[in-house]
This record gives sequence, C-alpha cells and structure tokens, in this order.
Amino acid sequence: MAKKLTKRSEDYSKWYNELVVQADLAENSAVRGCMVIKPYGFAIWEKMQAELDRMFKETGHQNAYFPLFVPKSLFEAEEKNAEGFAKECAVVTHYRLQNDPDNEGKLRVDPEAKLEEELVVRPTSEAIIWNTYKGWIQSYRDLPILVNQWANVVRWEMRTRLFLRTSEFLWQEGHTAHANKAEAIAEAAQMQEVYATFAEEFMAMPVIKGVKTDSERFAGAEETYTIEALMQDGKALQAGTSHFLGQNFAKAFDVKFATKEGKLDHVWATSWGVSTRLIGGLIMTHSDDHGLVLPPKLAPIQVVIVPIYKSEEELNRITEVAKELQRDLRNVGVSVKFDNRDTHKPGWKFAQYELQGVPLRIGIGPKDLEKRTVELARRDTLTKEFVAKDEVVNKVKDLLVEIQNTLHERALDFRNNHITKVDTFDDFEKVIKEKGGFVSAHWDGTEETEDRIKKRTKATIRCIPFDADNETGSCVLTGKPSQQRVLFAKAY
Amino acid sequence: MAKKLTKRSEDYSKWYNELVVQADLAENSAVRGCMVIKPYGFAIWEKMQAELDRMFKETGHQNAYFPLFVPKSLFEAEEKNAEGFAKECAVVTHYRLQNDPDNEGKLRVDPEAKLEEELVVRPTSEAIIWNTYKGWIQSYRDLPILVNQWANVVRWEMRTRLFLRTSEFLWQEGHTAHANKAEAIAEAAQMQEVYATFAEEFMAMPVIKGVKTDSERFAGAEETYTIEALMQDGKALQAGTSHFLGQNFAKAFDVKFATKEGKLDHVWATSWGVSTRLIGGLIMTHSDDHGLVLPPKLAPIQVVIVPIYKSEEELNRITEVAKELQRDLRNVGVSVKFDNRDTHKPGWKFAQYELQGVPLRIGIGPKDLEKRTVELARRDTLTKEFVAKDEVVNKVKDLLVEIQNTLHERALDFRNNHITKVDTFDDFEKVIKEKGGFVSAHWDGTEETEDRIKKRTKATIRCIPFDADNETGSCVLTGKPSQQRVLFAKAY
Ligand SMILES: [Zn+2]
Ligand SMILES: [Zn+2]
Repeated sequence: MAKKLTKRSEDYSKWYNELVVQADLAENSAVRGCMVIKPYGFAIWEKMQAELDRMFKETGHQNAYFPLFVPKSLFEAEEKNAEGFAKECAVVTHYRLQNDPDNEGKLRVDPEAKLEEELVVRPTSEAIIWNTYKGWIQSYRDLPILVNQWANVVRWEMRTRLFLRTSEFLWQEGHTAHANKAEAIAEAAQMQEVYATFAEEFMAMPVIKGVKTDSERFAGAEETYTIEALMQDGKALQAGTSHFLGQNFAKAFDVKFATKEGKLDHVWATSWGVSTRLIGGLIMTHSDDHGLVLPPKLAPIQVVIVPIYKSEEELNRITEVAKELQRDLRNVGVSVKFDNRDTHKPGWKFAQYELQGVPLRIGIGPKDLEKRTVELARRDTLTKEFVAKDEVVNKVKDLLVEIQNTLHERALDFRNNHITKVDTFDDFEKVIKEKGGFVSAHWDGTEETEDRIKKRTKATIRCIPFDADNETGSCVLTGKPSQQRVLFAKAY
Repeated sequence: MAKKLTKRSEDYSKWYNELVVQADLAENSAVRGCMVIKPYGFAIWEKMQAELDRMFKETGHQNAYFPLFVPKSLFEAEEKNAEGFAKECAVVTHYRLQNDPDNEGKLRVDPEAKLEEELVVRPTSEAIIWNTYKGWIQSYRDLPILVNQWANVVRWEMRTRLFLRTSEFLWQEGHTAHANKAEAIAEAAQMQEVYATFAEEFMAMPVIKGVKTDSERFAGAEETYTIEALMQDGKALQAGTSHFLGQNFAKAFDVKFATKEGKLDHVWATSWGVSTRLIGGLIMTHSDDHGLVLPPKLAPIQVVIVPIYKSEEELNRITEVAKELQRDLRNVGVSVKFDNRDTHKPGWKFAQYELQGVPLRIGIGPKDLEKRTVELARRDTLTKEFVAKDEVVNKVKDLLVEIQNTLHERALDFRNNHITKVDTFDDFEKVIKEKGGFVSAHWDGTEETEDRIKKRTKATIRCIPFDADNETGSCVLTGKPSQQRVLFAKAY
C-alpha cells in the first residue's frame, strides 16, 4: 500500500494497471496471459453474477454445464467459427506425464499418451453445445431451449491486460435454440436489452445499443447485437454481445426438428455473453486518481466503519457504537465492514478504502461519542460531513442511491460529450487523435472503407447504433452515399 | 420418457446410469469421460453451491479465482502431489490450429505454435495457488489466508461414470495458509465438520467422520480428514475431504513469513474440497426403483401442481386455484412449479415428476374444485391423501420438513445396519461379499496388510473413524496388535 498511483492524465494505461493491482482486484499469474482474481476483485464479479443470473432466470433461462474441451472434429464443423478462433486456442494433445529419465525429479509429457484426436480448450462453446442439442431436439415441443452456462474460456491472446484481455477469462454464455427466425432474433435482442439494463442500472455505465458490421461480427453469426461503453480515456469498450446465429450451427451439426406442420427444419440459434472484462469497464468508467470508485450496487463493501482512538478504553467505547451501527445498517440491507484491526492506523485505512472504492466511510472518534455524531465521507465526491448518529442509517441509505445516480450521470455526461459528429475525414482524424470518444460519421457500408479508416486512424466501427437519426449522407472517406451515421472509435 | 428403469435389485449400476439420464440430470458428451450437466441436474448443484458457499463465508472464507493451467515446472514442484496426479492429467502443448494442407476444410495443430513449457490442466490447484501465495505472504499479519475457489478440474480417468468419476468435474477447493500448525489442523477439522453438517442436514446423507490411512491420503498431505457415506448397494462413497498439508507446499514453493517474534518460518496449509460427485451420492442414498428421490432442501422444485382436466373450461377454473396456491406457497418460501402444458397428459406428468424426485405433487381435478380439496402425493413414501385447500400451505410446509427427516432417518438406519463388526478374516470376506456395507475390524496399521486385504476382497480402509470405541485387539488378517477398529468397505 501507500504506493502512489500514477495520474490518469500522465499515463492512463499505467494508472489502470497499477490500480488493479494496488486495489487488490487481480494480478498476473505464472501462466502467460492468465490472471489471478483476488478475493476483493472476485467479490465484485460475484455481485455481477448474482444480478445477471437473476435477470437470466427472470427471462426464462436455466443454467447447465458443458465440457471444457471440444474435440477438434467438432471444433472445425462450423467453418467460420472455427476460422475465427483457430489462431488463438490452447490444444490438449496428451493425457499423461511421466518421470523424465534424463532429468531426476522432473516430469515430461509421456509420448505414449498422445490423444487420437486433439482437444481444444473451449474459446466459446457453440460447437460442443450444438453437438449436444442434436440429441435434445426432435420436435417443436422440445423448443425453445433457453440455457446459460457460467464458465471459464481460453483464447490465446498475445497481448494481455488484467480483466480487459486475458488468455483465460470467466464469462457466461447463453445458448438458445428456437423453432423460427423471428423468435431467435427476439431472443438475441432481448438479451442485448438485459445487458444494457445491467450496465446502466448496476454498473452505472451508459451504453449504446446497436449492431456490428460484417467485419466486427462474431465468427459464425448472422447478426451481432452489441452494447458499447466509453472509457475515460476516450476509447470504447465492447461490454456485451448477443448473436443471432441463424441456422449456421444447426446446419453444421445437423440439428433438425419436426415443425407443428410436420415438416423438418433446421433449428434457429442465438448465443450471448459477458465476461470478467466488465470489471475492466467498471474500473475505467468511474475511477479517479485516488483509486477505484465503485457504484454502491456492485460494491462488496458499501460502508466501512473506521474507529479513531488512542487508548484501548476509547476503542471499546467506539466499538460499542460501531457494532450497533453495523447491525442497524445490515438490517436495512447495507453491507458494512467494521475495521477494528490494531495493526494499521486510521490514516492508512482511509487511504486503503479510498483506493478500493468503498462508497461510504464512517469515521468514529472520541469527540463523536461526546457529540453523538459520526464523520461520513463519500468516495465519489471525496466530501465529508458530520451526521447525527440517529440519522446515519437514513443518511446512508439515501447516499447510496445518490452515489449510484451521480456516477451514472457523470459517466453519461462524459459519454454524451464524447460523441462527435464529423463530416470530413480531416475532422475525423482530428477528433480521433485529439479528443477521442465516439465519432459519428457517414460510411459507405463497405468493408474496404472500414479497413482503410482503421489503417489510417486505428478507429473501428463500434456499432451501427439503433437510435441514429434517419439521415442519409456521404461517406466520410469515399463520399459515396450512406444510409445513416455509424459510430467509430478506438477500442479496447 | 416412459422407458422403464431397471430395478436396483437387478443391476444397481445400470439402474444408476439409467436414472441419471432419464431424470434429465446429466449425460455423456462427445468428449471422452466428460459429462454434460443438464439444467435439472445443474439446479441441484446450484442449491448445493448456495448452501456450501454460505457456510464457507460464515466461517470466514472468501472466494477467488486462479488459472486453469499449471506450468509443468510448478506442477512438479511438490513431489508427492505431482506424482499423485501426473498419470492422469490433460496437457496443453500448443496454442494454435491451422488449416490442414492435406485435408481441405480441416484443421491441424500448428507445429510452429508449440509452447516452450507445457501447461497442465489443473487436477487440483495447490501448485498454482501456493506459487501465488508466495507473493501475498510476508509477515504473520498477512495470515491467515482463507480462500476458496469454485472451479472445474480435470483428471484423466480411464473408467468414468456420470457424476461419480468424470474426467472433468466441478468442485470447490479451499486453500488456506496459517501461521502455525495447530491453527491449520483446526481449520482442516473445521471444514470436515462443515462438510459433515452439509451432508447430514441438506443432503440427508449420514456420514462417518475420520481420517485416511497413509495409502488413501491426498498426495502431498500430512493428514486427510474425510466424510464417508454409504450407498444403497453397500458400497462406500468418499463424500468430502479436508487436508492438513503441513508445510509441504510452503517448502516446495518457498513461502516463508516473519513471525510475531521476528523469525522466519514456513507457512502451514490446508486444502479441502467437495465436487459434483456429491450429486451421485445424493442419488444413491435416497432414490428408488421409480427414480430419483430428493431431500426437499436440495430439490429444485419442491412442489409440482398438475391440473387434471378434460375441457378448456375446467383447466381455466383449475388454473385459478393452482395459481393462488402457487402464490401462497411461494410466499412461505416453497419452490413450486405449475405444469399446465397441454402437450402432455397428467399420467405422463405424474410419472415424470416421480422420476425426477419432486418431493410433493399436488393434483387438482374438477372434483377437487367442488370439494375444495387437492390431492397431495409424497414422493418418498409414494402415499397420497386429500387435503382441504385451506390447509394445503401448512400441510406442505410440515411435509417438507417431515420428508427431509424421513429420508435422513431411513438412510441412517440403513447405514447403521450396515456397519458390521468382524473378528475373523472369514467373516470379513463373507460380509464384504454378501452383505456389503462397512466392516469394522482390527488392523495392524501397516500398508502391507491394507494392500493384501484390498487384493483379496477389493475392500479398502475408508477411514479410521473418530468415534470408535477405545478397544484394542488383533488384526483381522495378521493377528498382530491393533489400537482400534477401522472401517473397511468397497467404495466408489
Ligand atoms: Zn442517469
Ligand atoms: Zn435424523
């Protein structure tokens, strides 16, 4: 602790890396590109999981679990999907180690224990799941299948960053099967909506809803619905995607069903996922130069009580008040930690909880006991005030709501101020270079133009937004006709 | 559905396999030895997880997440542990696939993408975790570390059975670090107690607490605390283990801490885990020839309401009553499904929910509407009775408690009737062969004798039980002196 964070304005990327480690969220492991999610970071993920899982179940989904491994022959069955992931997958080739005869005490792969067919560690589970659904689906009566899985997946990334891009990450992946196209599209759209609601209401992170262009679409999808957030450094973050997969996987795995009318048809599919990457988005939406800032709805600790004392006798009297307060707050559903460790000074604790983004801090000293007050400090505004002890519970309840709203408002203002309409490529380059954020520009609809813009500016089309004005125009690069503006940005 | 289950008395193993599949709990996958856990089976696991997770947190533990992969050099660091798992582990050797030049549309491992160091898919996480703890622990102030992880692990099993023994399984693994031996031993014992409480109170599965012999101990442990259950076929099931690891891992990974007295010492460790294997134990403790029987506390659906109707008009009137009942039951915390599907007949539904072990079934027909009654059927006793509608909620609440207790009592009676004291090896062989269950016998304490008994009878020492009589005697095989009786059994 007590190490100082790099300022965001100095080096945003360095600030992020330091914050993740210093706030005890995660760290790099001995395995290239894989992270250790530390208890405090994992507690945030558990809060996210709990809300998302509730929302999935409320929309009729059930959880299940499918194998970690995908036999190569299944992996390659859906061609586009295979192509999209082949270059970055971990492959199991052997199932045994043996003593290394040349190296006392060391092990080596047993050459006799080579698998007949290699196993790919799942980068995503469409292949193994659709191979399974084949056995589950005979008739329209078996549809829809609305299944989700919480799992780890592996994509062999060359350049990794904690939470944002790691070789192994945790996620949920929904995989649904439907009797017709319209229902599958509605499902994909519904899950985009669920993700957007979660981002806005729980993460206090504003998102833009839209669809991906051909080149940014999920490998094997017909349409990818996305929610796009904006980070403080002006780069976009794809926060969740929901894919309408058409009949691609059903065809690849030969999954047909008898329709109500007695015909045979291929099943329609969706898949949708969010991952531990959301924690990276959460950090980069709200945090400041003092450290993490957490929206109360996802904070593992919403309120911390720190005693300020000189003698054991003072601590005892403060403890009495603190424990009562803790109980009262817990009774109204607030999560409270009372940090009475004698191994650390109050000042150290203040800095630590600030760094870890605890939304509210209550300090209680001997003078507070006399005056029947406590000192209440807000993490989001860094302001402090004295509050009468009898009013603390109500005040805390109100403030937790207010902080949640304030964070959302702040992020929304920032985001809205960073959507810039441009109509010339000079302006485009300038905005991307200097201001950052989303550039709203006309585009001629071709992959070629998208590519050229990417090469020149590093900006990609984040999405074709749903709520765009009904405005035609000319492509910002080629001048060719365009049906609507799309959103470009540099992205994580 | 409607396929008939093999009777337990005909072929217990076949009965089990059929039940798991027909009750929609799990199925084999395209990956050798890996299972698909279906939504209904996974819902049982979620209920288990929720209770266990609560119990872990109540005893001061936090969740975290560590990498799926263990670099070979870390894997081999703790010699005994490595030796114990080397023969059954999946090894990642490459990180990329490429188009197969000899085989249009197929992929092959890219020989250029060979890892410098192979990665073992974790069979258990001591190695990767203790390598991480090295960075977390400097002083006694950093201790204890009380961490748990919910994860998938892989052990390449040659003979697999759904839930009981699969190459990939889900589990939790606690990994704690302590400043002294006594505290670590107390932790290991505490977690054995947590597991026993969970087994008895939630699974309604009686367990015997004890320690493992040297030969049955976890690879790398100094002491393995175990809970052992007895299945209906007289075979034992190791349901959970908690290991006192001494300083073995701290030494292997060089994890030292500054003591309060300013000395350097190696850290003391425990690890403990239960897995999806518990679902196998749950099935084999309570189920019958009609299918699954679930204790109410772990049943995803505690009550199912089935309407019995001829006309749409009847269904409408029944639905009104059913929905009211559903609401009232939910208000008192009972999970209720109202199955109003018109694609299946009531008789089919009755059989299905019986097969799936739903503890209580409520049937409502037109006559019930007249008489203001419902028909209430118990899964555990297969008895039915008519209950006045106004009394249903209270009746259901009472019955759920009663069923939970009945199942426990039944299993306890069975278990207690299957602990047989023997004093000659003839009797030993006879009991193991004919009656099954636990054999309580004197043993001379040597691995050699244990081995010889295993070869002759297939029975192993399940545990040295804690609550054994203070009775010395002579080994049932060798006649040499013995300090106490131990429990032998054939085991899953
Ligand atoms: Zn707002
Ligand atoms: Zn009992």
